[in-house]
Amino acid sequence: MTSPALDIALAYHHAWTGKDFEKAMTHVADDIVCHAPAGKLSGAEAFRGFMGPFTEILTGSNLLSAFGDETTALLMYDTATLPVPSAPGAELVTVRDGKIVELRIVFDRAPFDAARAAAAGV
Amino acid sequence: MTSPALDIALAYHHAWTGKDFEKAMTHVADDIVCHAPAGKLSGAEAFRGFMGPFTEILTGSNLLSAFGDETTALLMYDTATLPVPSAPGAELVTVRDGKIVELRIVFDRAPFDAARAAAAGV
Repeated sequence: MTSPALDIALAYHHAWTGKDFEKAMTHVADDIVCHAPAGKLSGAEAFRGFMGPFTEILTGSNLLSAFGDETTALLMYDTATLPVPSAPGAELVTVRDGKIVELRIVFDRAPFDAARAAAAGV
Repeated sequence: MTSPALDIALAYHHAWTGKDFEKAMTHVADDIVCHAPAGKLSGAEAFRGFMGPFTEILTGSNLLSAFGDETTALLMYDTATLPVPSAPGAELVTVRDGKIVELRIVFDRAPFDAARAAAAGV
């Protein structure tokens, strides 16, 4: 089964995990709606402010699974980051006209919170 | 595309989200390995100790996406729970001989930690 949505989702994924966040953003619609653990982000600039900093602490990634159909794709991956050695995530991506218009991301904020607290000497 | 793994993953999913955890466990192999946010759990009893209590605080669920192939399935869902009104999760399920032998679950522990701290008056 070919999946146009999965093609876009993987192009986006490979760009940001390859640390080319600007290339990743070329797959993102201006009016993207992102459902992140901290809440809803509307628009490409809000999305950039969320995902951009993450790619800067990224040190490795491993795509665990990826499926898709005509309009949606679902991915799970593991990442290695500077503060957290294993930070898996999952993304449900909706594509329209070749761009990502909606992205729901699930990951565990707890180890990032713990790393931040440790760094702050709490 | 039919997916034997997705059939099992959905049977498991519908059972636990329907609050019939014992029925859900009939789809779980005795030697299941579960990769959870807090670490690796080995065996059905360890898995039961992790997922069982969660189903007791569950008040609702919404399957957002589900895909699968011969041996693996990938699901994303939202749940409503007593302490956390929206707690989405994703599961990558591996099936062998009709049973779930590996399950990687991603969800955000942060709101559960916050709810626990609030309940403890921290």
